[in-house]
Amino acid sequence: MNIRSPRLNRLLDSWLDEDLGRGDLTSIALDQDGSAYWVAKQSGIFCGGTLAAHLFQRLDTAIQVNLLLKEGEYFQAGQRLLEVQGPTASLASGERTALNLAMHLSGIATDTAALVKELEGTGVRLADTRKTTPGMRILEKYAFRCGGGINHRLGLDDAAMLKENHIAWAGGITKALQKIKASAPWPTKIIVEVETPEQAKEAIIAGADGILLDEIAPEVLLELVPKLRSLASIRDSHQGSNHIVLEASGVDPMEIKAFAKTGINLISTSAPITRSKWVDFSMRFVMR
Amino acid sequence: MNIRSPRLNRLLDSWLDEDLGRGDLTSIALDQDGSAYWVAKQSGIFCGGTLAAHLFQRLDTAIQVNLLLKEGEYFQAGQRLLEVQGPTASLASGERTALNLAMHLSGIATDTAALVKELEGTGVRLADTRKTTPGMRILEKYAFRCGGGINHRLGLDDAAMLKENHIAWAGGITKALQKIKASAPWPTKIIVEVETPEQAKEAIIAGADGILLDEIAPEVLLELVPKLRSLASIRDSHQGSNHIVLEASGVDPMEIKAFAKTGINLISTSAPITRSKWVDFSMRFVMR
Amino acid sequence: MNIRSPRLNRLLDSWLDEDLGRGDLTSIALDQDGSAYWVAKQSGIFCGGTLAAHLFQRLDTAIQVNLLLKEGEYFQAGQRLLEVQGPTASLASGERTALNLAMHLSGIATDTAALVKELEGTGVRLADTRKTTPGMRILEKYAFRCGGGINHRLGLDDAAMLKENHIAWAGGITKALQKIKASAPWPTKIIVEVETPEQAKEAIIAGADGILLDEIAPEVLLELVPKLRSLASIRDSHQGSNHIVLEASGVDPMEIKAFAKTGINLISTSAPITRSKWVDFSMRFVMR
Amino acid sequence: MNIRSPRLNRLLDSWLDEDLGRGDLTSIALDQDGSAYWVAKQSGIFCGGTLAAHLFQRLDTAIQVNLLLKEGEYFQAGQRLLEVQGPTASLASGERTALNLAMHLSGIATDTAALVKELEGTGVRLADTRKTTPGMRILEKYAFRCGGGINHRLGLDDAAMLKENHIAWAGGITKALQKIKASAPWPTKIIVEVETPEQAKEAIIAGADGILLDEIAPEVLLELVPKLRSLASIRDSHQGSNHIVLEASGVDPMEIKAFAKTGINLISTSAPITRSKWVDFSMRFVMR
Amino acid sequence: MNIRSPRLNRLLDSWLDEDLGRGDLTSIALDQDGSAYWVAKQSGIFCGGTLAAHLFQRLDTAIQVNLLLKEGEYFQAGQRLLEVQGPTASLASGERTALNLAMHLSGIATDTAALVKELEGTGVRLADTRKTTPGMRILEKYAFRCGGGINHRLGLDDAAMLKENHIAWAGGITKALQKIKASAPWPTKIIVEVETPEQAKEAIIAGADGILLDEIAPEVLLELVPKLRSLASIRDSHQGSNHIVLEASGVDPMEIKAFAKTGINLISTSAPITRSKWVDFSMRFVMR
Amino acid sequence: MNIRSPRLNRLLDSWLDEDLGRGDLTSIALDQDGSAYWVAKQSGIFCGGTLAAHLFQRLDTAIQVNLLLKEGEYFQAGQRLLEVQGPTASLASGERTALNLAMHLSGIATDTAALVKELEGTGVRLADTRKTTPGMRILEKYAFRCGGGINHRLGLDDAAMLKENHIAWAGGITKALQKIKASAPWPTKIIVEVETPEQAKEAIIAGADGILLDEIAPEVLLELVPKLRSLASIRDSHQGSNHIVLEASGVDPMEIKAFAKTGINLISTSAPITRSKWVDFSMRFVMR
Repeated sequence: MNIRSPRLNRLLDSWLDEDLGRGDLTSIALDQDGSAYWVAKQSGIFCGGTLAAHLFQRLDTAIQVNLLLKEGEYFQAGQRLLEVQGPTASLASGERTALNLAMHLSGIATDTAALVKELEGTGVRLADTRKTTPGMRILEKYAFRCGGGINHRLGLDDAAMLKENHIAWAGGITKALQKIKASAPWPTKIIVEVETPEQAKEAIIAGADGILLDEIAPEVLLELVPKLRSLASIRDSHQGSNHIVLEASGVDPMEIKAFAKTGINLISTSAPITRSKWVDFSMRFVMR
Repeated sequence: MNIRSPRLNRLLDSWLDEDLGRGDLTSIALDQDGSAYWVAKQSGIFCGGTLAAHLFQRLDTAIQVNLLLKEGEYFQAGQRLLEVQGPTASLASGERTALNLAMHLSGIATDTAALVKELEGTGVRLADTRKTTPGMRILEKYAFRCGGGINHRLGLDDAAMLKENHIAWAGGITKALQKIKASAPWPTKIIVEVETPEQAKEAIIAGADGILLDEIAPEVLLELVPKLRSLASIRDSHQGSNHIVLEASGVDPMEIKAFAKTGINLISTSAPITRSKWVDFSMRFVMR
Repeated sequence: MNIRSPRLNRLLDSWLDEDLGRGDLTSIALDQDGSAYWVAKQSGIFCGGTLAAHLFQRLDTAIQVNLLLKEGEYFQAGQRLLEVQGPTASLASGERTALNLAMHLSGIATDTAALVKELEGTGVRLADTRKTTPGMRILEKYAFRCGGGINHRLGLDDAAMLKENHIAWAGGITKALQKIKASAPWPTKIIVEVETPEQAKEAIIAGADGILLDEIAPEVLLELVPKLRSLASIRDSHQGSNHIVLEASGVDPMEIKAFAKTGINLISTSAPITRSKWVDFSMRFVMR
Repeated sequence: MNIRSPRLNRLLDSWLDEDLGRGDLTSIALDQDGSAYWVAKQSGIFCGGTLAAHLFQRLDTAIQVNLLLKEGEYFQAGQRLLEVQGPTASLASGERTALNLAMHLSGIATDTAALVKELEGTGVRLADTRKTTPGMRILEKYAFRCGGGINHRLGLDDAAMLKENHIAWAGGITKALQKIKASAPWPTKIIVEVETPEQAKEAIIAGADGILLDEIAPEVLLELVPKLRSLASIRDSHQGSNHIVLEASGVDPMEIKAFAKTGINLISTSAPITRSKWVDFSMRFVMR
Repeated sequence: MNIRSPRLNRLLDSWLDEDLGRGDLTSIALDQDGSAYWVAKQSGIFCGGTLAAHLFQRLDTAIQVNLLLKEGEYFQAGQRLLEVQGPTASLASGERTALNLAMHLSGIATDTAALVKELEGTGVRLADTRKTTPGMRILEKYAFRCGGGINHRLGLDDAAMLKENHIAWAGGITKALQKIKASAPWPTKIIVEVETPEQAKEAIIAGADGILLDEIAPEVLLELVPKLRSLASIRDSHQGSNHIVLEASGVDPMEIKAFAKTGINLISTSAPITRSKWVDFSMRFVMR
Repeated sequence: MNIRSPRLNRLLDSWLDEDLGRGDLTSIALDQDGSAYWVAKQSGIFCGGTLAAHLFQRLDTAIQVNLLLKEGEYFQAGQRLLEVQGPTASLASGERTALNLAMHLSGIATDTAALVKELEGTGVRLADTRKTTPGMRILEKYAFRCGGGINHRLGLDDAAMLKENHIAWAGGITKALQKIKASAPWPTKIIVEVETPEQAKEAIIAGADGILLDEIAPEVLLELVPKLRSLASIRDSHQGSNHIVLEASGVDPMEIKAFAKTGINLISTSAPITRSKWVDFSMRFVMR
């Protein structure tokens, strides 16, 4: 995560304000130096440490943070994750927000990593979706990367995904693609969600960069994918072109290995973001 | 949720911007009127409908929203939740953000309601914690209320919770309470986290409003609670005073019924916020 | 005042911008190092020095501030209060805003201290109200604390104060308290404004934490307070319980000593915030 | 006050947020229509009514406000000032902030009007200063106008006021004026604070638009002013030129009439802003 | 331009504030209804009318705007462009900002259209760059589309453009592409700036989506382009694949026709944004 | 340019965010130290260097900038302008925004300087207008100063310019001036745009500080100006008073020398802001 961004600074500030409200009642008159560390209460993949460090320093430049793990690294229950030292009032004021952020992101990274492991060796990659908690899009997508996944589009403006309704409004797949190609920035990739081989054929011929195959069983895909690759070769004149990206969604995590064998390029899933649990960390103050 | 708040307006705007980025690529040249509805893909407790309606109207005042359920109401899989109509480009631009918000909040409300049901008839209430997703504090706490729970403090500024570290810094429970009482606004309630009956006694005599009993087994509580009530009566001169609020935390959801029988007033838990899954809704456009 | 808060930073920045507008016309081409000090033109209680220091440093990190008094300390006319040094253009750009802030806050602290002195030895405390200059709530309440007072609730969200209209809308005191208790966060204290002993009785039995006795003459209070304490003991089973907080408002500052003898716990007053005058400070540049 | 300004909207929003915090606890479950009115508890000059109306409507567009007085109009104790109707929860949420604003501004307008009355018939005008409560500059200056005064410069950027320190840094009055004239926007007026007739002469010859005579007794001014006008005529070739504006500051309100007879153009004073008390208004809900 | 965006609202508000400052001095006491119209003082392509209309309505909802031209339409000198009516103080307050916006954008659209006309019939499209006035990116890119051009990437986050320095840091073109492909969202297009056929070959084989040929003379391109297409066919197995986008930059507008014949897909140019002049419009008030 | 201003910081941050969007795709995994320099591709007047330096440091405090030219200095094609060193990812992230700012401002400064040169020795000064790119007002006016011009009013709030429509609404020039003088801050200069000697006479007698003579040919001005100076002397009792500022606008840059001989004080022109081209700079990374 590149923390050099005014936008991220504003997010961190707004989160600190959210918890501080009109000021930390318990920190009154407790201004002395101290130190604390984070310890994991369960195992997982670490994510959000650099953000937590940056957040503490936005609150008080006198706080020093020592990260004991890299982003994306595995930790065991009981392992120390980071150490902080500085004015105790500031440490206590930032504690909850920093923990909330890292526990949430590490939960996502941990679940992502578990799914990515299922795909190991298959060449199929795991991508996220736009189902993210409002206000947390870039952070949750970063956690997905920490867990080994790759990101799908970041918002409505960096790729065009044509769904059933867009196609109906435009008067068909071909017309919809023409409209997008005429008006969108040229580096825009266009992805079409299809339900039938006929739709896929039309989308591929019309110049789609990706085809989204939603809620199609792996055994159906096993037959469909080679046909789609073959359809793509009408356009690209050779078998095995990687110009068309075939993506499956609506995948039951239990069946992920079956999907991985169908020849698709990508599985996209919101599960690590919408269904993961926070990993539990505790911040312990060092008492002298 | 009182939606009359400039602060909430800014949150909703920032969430729309997060998904829109530099503009919705797919909505180009598709400006016509249309309608859509939300349907639940599983059962649960509805939460976030009024917020979704407000969000759509922040985006485009030409959008009309018709809520088919009240906040906190139960819905079945397949049930319609709300209807929207207006310019299709605006409906599509707001779709994902509105759904993300309501699916996340309904997931919290649904899990909260399940735990609240366990407590039915016991007189014990379920409260949340400050473990909330950064940026979503007032929304997630609202969802917790939709599910039948009550809120614990909203931030560091509206009640004083004294933990081990605060007590150590202040030089003991009694001194810590004195400091807080001398400086905090008078309506501030003071809650002390204790580990032993001795600490509880000291906290109660020093004037605590609430005692937090963290990770203590129900069978231990069964004995401890009457003693604490009795200790409270030293201060309040009579048995059964409701002036001291006894709160258990660190409660395994499986054991919640055992805790409910110990005589405590409250169980506080972060589980519906940190461990719930989103409820799945779909927005379906009406094609003509 | 804990200056470690993004919210406070934004306030300070907005105040600097308010005076700077599109830039300080007089500071053009005058960039050299210099120093200045603040001197009091009358005596009073100092408040706002740490904020002024923080404001100067938000404007220009090259500015050094040396505070000669602690917050809440008494100063005499002619006394030096703080010293600043740094680029003269920056010193001159921040001068007016920093002085305005500290002169206003010191005025409040000074008037608060005068009233608090009247209460010395009585055990009755002085609390503020929500009558504060828009945008200055946390600062003016901080100045009230600097003067020795304590704060009442900070906003509409951190305690529930039931007035005549709330009671009428809810259908009576008891119903109003039930509604609040059912929906408010559990640490919320509930205060009821009453006009008769009957109302007070109802409020106390219904579980109010505080009773606000508005514009009732001290001689009436003298008789009423023991009755209310006695009514409270119906609820709390013993005389002298400090669970009920009795608060007088609408107190003429001239009669404050008479009120202090009535047995109440608190006198709440807006006077030091709505009726105080600024204390006059001057910033003098050191010419070499 | 022109309320058509995004900047003012943001101020009003921030003030509502300041009181609402995380939401009005007492407004829960009280959503019904109602009405209320404002009544003055003492006499004065009304100011802030249009702002209060705009503030209520920013909070809830369903609120209707009927202003019974114009801005700057005199009201008696007991007089009704405005009427509001709409959802009671919204009326109660905006009540305190709207009142605080109008009571503060009306206090300033009332004190300004009293001083302006002292100057009636003298041709001398009353101007404010940059001593304003941080965040309230444009509002307090507006209240000063409501009371019949005129505004001095609005900030550091819309006129150049040269004080002792600026003159010293620049190396003298003439050099300072040359520097400002070379770099400031051409419509910038330049005002010089002087202590002696010699300084005044230099400032006038160097092209100052205004001379600020600070803390000079009226009897001294009586002799000095004609000399300064005469000095100005060296520059402007005729007696009685109104090109030079002579302004007195540091004027004791008790001596204002003596100052008004000295031939100066303006008296500038911070008193109505830094020393006025709020006028007391009450918002009464109509109970049915 | 989709005007339904909180981000755009904030931009418009900030521009109004920029001109209004602390309030329009000339609009004082002139509040009456009136009307005005815009007339072109030279011919061009209209752009920014819907934005101007939205800006006037952000300032004052009582303003009505009637657009007489569509965005992107040609107008002649003397032609009326839009009509506004409403409170004259509001019309005058918004006049300059609205005109500045539309005159600047129409200047860009006009120059873009002139270049696009040069390309008519060639199949080569004109794209913009990231050279845009700070704060005006989405608006200037919109004006470029109004003139018939298409947009290149909108920012650093929606396509990856590898320049000499990125390639050097990564250790070569192939390594740079591998790194980007491993970490960027999958819909990211990758464009490589090359200087030699060898670099182009490496970039194409490594999977680039586009090749940027900067400052290469058209006669050189004429030979190079078929070779690059041929190199692309090594990857894509057939001549004429449109998978590789060949883009020329550093094109002298005078030579644009020569470039258009070289077989490239795109010419990217900053000229209509960095070198165009504003088109002159005048707002004339209707006097009665 | 005084860079010590929270307002400027927010502008710089918003411009960085505009280009960074959700993060720089190409900077991923390239975090190492490096250096770069700016070189001019054409000659001109340098402007924006201190702003570019401040912008780089807002992005990353680890970046060091060494400015090789002063603001307003002339540079030749090929000359180095500034050097930067720091983390390469940060340098690349800020590159485009910093260049866009300085290239745009240097273009304005360069064109301003060319016009100012035409006026050398005439005593006539060149002033800008309110025709500025939305969001860039203070920056573009700063660039105009860098080129040797002076600024006209900065916004609607720091001088009153009465145009045909204001005069008509107020019922004539004299009434309009009376209204402004009664309500505007006293340091406000009043400028009247006139079309005839009669209007000029009325404006001067009514007390205008400046007369704007729009689109009047130099040969007409040659006769008119002495008459206007003479009219001014009726008011100011002597010839040659510099109290009235005569300003010509609508000046064709080709005729600027003819205008300069007419005896006017100022020529105001939007040309360097609305018609200049960006000066071309390149940022070159030092490769090792």
